[in-house]
Amino acid sequence: MQDFDILVVGAGIVGIASAYHLQRNSPGKKVLVVERLGDVGQANTGRSNAMFRNTFTSVDNQTLASSAIDFYMHVQNDLGIDVGMDSIGYMWLMSEAQLSAAEGHIRRMVANGVEVKRYSEEELRRAIPGLETRQRSDDSRLMSLPDVAHGLFGPKCGRLAPEKLTGFYRDAFVEAGGKILFNQSARKLLVEPRDRIGIDGEPFVWQRSRVAGVELADGKEVRAGTTVVAAGAWNNKLTDPMGTDGHAKAKKRQLFAVPAGGVPLLGDLLFAKGFNPSGTLPFVILPKSGLFIKPVKESNEFWIGCEDEVNRPYMSYPDDDLEKFLAEPAYYENDIHQILKEYLPQFAGVRPSRMWAGLYSYNTLDNMPYVFPEEGLIVVGGDSGSGVMKGDSLGRLVDAVYRDGWDAEASLYGDVPYRASKLSFAHRDVEREDWVL
Amino acid sequence: MQDFDILVVGAGIVGIASAYHLQRNSPGKKVLVVERLGDVGQANTGRSNAMFRNTFTSVDNQTLASSAIDFYMHVQNDLGIDVGMDSIGYMWLMSEAQLSAAEGHIRRMVANGVEVKRYSEEELRRAIPGLETRQRSDDSRLMSLPDVAHGLFGPKCGRLAPEKLTGFYRDAFVEAGGKILFNQSARKLLVEPRDRIGIDGEPFVWQRSRVAGVELADGKEVRAGTTVVAAGAWNNKLTDPMGTDGHAKAKKRQLFAVPAGGVPLLGDLLFAKGFNPSGTLPFVILPKSGLFIKPVKESNEFWIGCEDEVNRPYMSYPDDDLEKFLAEPAYYENDIHQILKEYLPQFAGVRPSRMWAGLYSYNTLDNMPYVFPEEGLIVVGGDSGSGVMKGDSLGRLVDAVYRDGWDAEASLYGDVPYRASKLSFAHRDVEREDWVL
Repeated sequence: MQDFDILVVGAGIVGIASAYHLQRNSPGKKVLVVERLGDVGQANTGRSNAMFRNTFTSVDNQTLASSAIDFYMHVQNDLGIDVGMDSIGYMWLMSEAQLSAAEGHIRRMVANGVEVKRYSEEELRRAIPGLETRQRSDDSRLMSLPDVAHGLFGPKCGRLAPEKLTGFYRDAFVEAGGKILFNQSARKLLVEPRDRIGIDGEPFVWQRSRVAGVELADGKEVRAGTTVVAAGAWNNKLTDPMGTDGHAKAKKRQLFAVPAGGVPLLGDLLFAKGFNPSGTLPFVILPKSGLFIKPVKESNEFWIGCEDEVNRPYMSYPDDDLEKFLAEPAYYENDIHQILKEYLPQFAGVRPSRMWAGLYSYNTLDNMPYVFPEEGLIVVGGDSGSGVMKGDSLGRLVDAVYRDGWDAEASLYGDVPYRASKLSFAHRDVEREDWVL
Repeated sequence: MQDFDILVVGAGIVGIASAYHLQRNSPGKKVLVVERLGDVGQANTGRSNAMFRNTFTSVDNQTLASSAIDFYMHVQNDLGIDVGMDSIGYMWLMSEAQLSAAEGHIRRMVANGVEVKRYSEEELRRAIPGLETRQRSDDSRLMSLPDVAHGLFGPKCGRLAPEKLTGFYRDAFVEAGGKILFNQSARKLLVEPRDRIGIDGEPFVWQRSRVAGVELADGKEVRAGTTVVAAGAWNNKLTDPMGTDGHAKAKKRQLFAVPAGGVPLLGDLLFAKGFNPSGTLPFVILPKSGLFIKPVKESNEFWIGCEDEVNRPYMSYPDDDLEKFLAEPAYYENDIHQILKEYLPQFAGVRPSRMWAGLYSYNTLDNMPYVFPEEGLIVVGGDSGSGVMKGDSLGRLVDAVYRDGWDAEASLYGDVPYRASKLSFAHRDVEREDWVL
């Protein structure tokens, strides 16, 4: 295997966006992506809900997401490459108490240029067919379901197509000269002394050591000047053995696809008018357990999930095989459906036709992503379930750190300056994100 | 098994100090400590180097350690209970570049009341028998060993006896009415809905859930109003399965006991005069790899170790059995001894007579400890190798959080106020520690 200047491990959205920006800004360098699966975006990126929003509580997340969304819009509208951007909007349904708690966040969103629009209870009842804003049933009381008193709508939010978006980066990366090795997983980082002596047991503690590439699952070595670990939920499996914390804690997250056909009130809901040019319901978040409803008009269905934080394990080293993480029919039945039917009774008795699971890769410190270098190494991750919508910005940050070091000032899309060290641990300076879905 | 108000998992220094302060300040409450081993301080506390210092770069660490050291001194001098406090001092040997980099830290230490004294190269050569300040050999050049240009001495630093210190807390805790269950390990945290309905599968996502105690390895349950997880390197094993990050990353650390007998120049070094009332060498840190030398006059030996950061794995879930973590003779030979013999040639060819290993429990975010509550739970840890010297302060913080919640203002020993939320993650506000040994 020949040597490379840069080796990127992982072709999820963050890995392939990083590879693209690295190759584009260092056209003379040889860049290789190593991916365990057969194409880009096939693991957790492809299993994700693939929503985008700029309505975060953290101004850092607002900046990272806004810029990436602008870039994706540019790709679709200016370059003419469809990446599935569909600005259906986010509608946060809130109780009185939730809105009070959010007012500070909303003020700061507006100050930072994030567009939001408020809905009254009455407007919500008119606009969302079947919405039960007042919770009076025995089940509602048992579950402590709050009344819906307000709506907060984010128009610069919506859904995208992760397979198209990662496909765009793949093609652009390859066109710029980059290479991708599919169906090969990186088993281990190679750690070597910078100045090899040739004694057994190197590197010793008194040697300066560096990452020199990876060992693949088939035993071959790929050597590189810089190795970028962008393996998402699996970051720790590569970095922990060499003594660098990968800082990723994975949790299983589930999605349930519920058909809208056959139940007229579900069809009315799916195609609720007045919110967006697509003529569909926005992405709706209920005021309990972060339960969300995504309209998917092409397949005439909703994708439904929730925050799923109750007693759900964290994993530092999740299994490589995502097929082992199964969606649970009982979870829809006993957890999701119970809440859903109270706010939108047309879902009563309606069951999912498909379901799947993937992994969120949390940074449990502040729910914000990280980018940091070590010798010969850049680690990126921790996007805590919102990697798709920040992928372009994280890719530009990885590239900036590669070219200018830990304190690089990256230029995000739209000439937005952002200092990479803010997302490091040694010099971390980001606002915690409180709205994780 | 009867119910308890408070259950503390782990009787290392942090667990037993927490139990003591909890019981002392809530005399009417029933407090139980569950410990896997047969007595207090038998795992990593007992395997540690058991040094204490207030010379940290983080003002938070300075405060936490200074107050705890004052308390340990009070126990020994005022209460008349020997905990082995021996203020031999810390001597940091520094190169010109290291001192320059440290000047800012030193200024802030002095401003925060930390006493330090500077030594010139000449003073060091006179005071430390055999010290080779100028590095000119081929081996030195190969290892890039810097010259020793300065010494920084911390007099409010020294060694203590962890078995005596944890024994003091054990006895005082039991005398105050606390109970300890030895030789029983907590296998799992019990997570339950606050309001149980009686349906299979609780807690559901719409229920408010809480930690209600632990399941022991023998299958019995111990129920408690509040469970304190103070399991050090093993925190994640308890908290991760319920979806709370234990935030501990463990690394093996080794100590090598080298006899001073038979080599006159080693005896001279062990009993170097002029530094402290004990008439021994201080704890000396060489300017390479954090290599340290601890004089142990009772057994006429030195304990030697180093930072050991090169290619040393992090573990999120280390084995329970510390006997599996072996010290490595080759590590002394190829890593430690190579450096040691260049600065102190009397160690040339001298080998350790005993060696052992334990686990540091790092908080890789900022090398600072954490204390945070969840419902029915308090998690404490991440002391990053300096838990013994901060144990009393962490115990008081756990107690303050128990009594007054996440934003409690603890009163550390000496009436030093310290807000507990500074050590949480949700409201973290601590300075990173840069001097981890």
